Amino acid sequence: MIVVLRIGHRVSRDKRITTHCALVARAFGADTILISTKDEKIKHTIKALCKKFGGSFAIETGVNPKKFIENWKGIIIHLTMYGDSVEKVIKKVDKTQDMLVIIGAEKVPPYYYDMATHNISIGSQPHSEVAALAIFLDRYLEGSWQEKDFSGNLTIVPSKTRKLVLQKERGKYEQNSRS
Amino acid sequence: MIVVLRIGHRVSRDKRITTHCALVARAFGADTILISTKDEKIKHTIKALCKKFGGSFAIETGVNPKKFIENWKGIIIHLTMYGDSVEKVIKKVDKTQDMLVIIGAEKVPPYYYDMATHNISIGSQPHSEVAALAIFLDRYLEGSWQEKDFSGNLTIVPSKTRKLVLQKERGKYEQNSRS
Repeated sequence: MIVVLRIGHRVSRDKRITTHCALVARAFGADTILISTKDEKIKHTIKALCKKFGGSFAIETGVNPKKFIENWKGIIIHLTMYGDSVEKVIKKVDKTQDMLVIIGAEKVPPYYYDMATHNISIGSQPHSEVAALAIFLDRYLEGSWQEKDFSGNLTIVPSKTRKLVLQKERGKYEQNSRS
Repeated sequence: MIVVLRIGHRVSRDKRITTHCALVARAFGADTILISTKDEKIKHTIKALCKKFGGSFAIETGVNPKKFIENWKGIIIHLTMYGDSVEKVIKKVDKTQDMLVIIGAEKVPPYYYDMATHNISIGSQPHSEVAALAIFLDRYLEGSWQEKDFSGNLTIVPSKTRKLVLQKERGKYEQNSRS
């Protein structure tokens, strides 16, 4: 099981970045995202998307992060630009255990550095927790997230030239041209 | 040369997502980001960051995307969730040419699909242009972006346990403890 914990989410300022974090968590193979701040709107957005595109991804908001961490049985990854290089650490990550991946918004208190099994950086330049989460999950799952079958009501068919979407109607997929 | 072209940027709604796109472009080895909408604030933010963390990354806003594309000599990659799988296409991308990478916000007109050398998807689930750009550049550069030396006034030293930042003072680096 892979759980992503988003801490320090500010409802107004971070709404789109946290939404992107949730979508990346889902698309790149995590099972759940937990957001420390209560935010019904983001929960609704993600649940609506899951209903359309499928899968069993879960989202909870208003989760107490310290309480959750203290009860967590498994490894804890903290993604931070100050951490140790992903290339170096990824081999040491125990893949037999459940994994909690913590991503912060702005400054992260030392508590999270101390609680992490590994503090991991995706490059040592400032960029984005959205990108860091994607690259980390991609490295961890060795690209296998791309094979995941979401069996959604909407399925995108890869195309060289245009939008091609299949829509499930009465149990069968039909083409839903959108280009 | 790698140029990222961000189209459809809405100054108020997209400011943080586009900022993350610019930071990812810089950190993952692109040379320039062009933003179709005029936005002095985002330009200022990125320039200030480059001054601190180094490198020769450039940013321009208010760029006419069609005019730019029509004058572009090189290949054009359009990142879209409707595109052909990155795993399939990445081998076909001509690495000897300059590369323009187009990322949209919301709906992208068919024009860009038509002009692209390759329409590429990073998975076929909805997620984030920030993540898509990071994964694409990571695949294209085969991880070598991590070795790039930015020679900034601030340099982050990878650490297992804490924030460790070196600051250039009178030409020499000194530790600037921030934890």
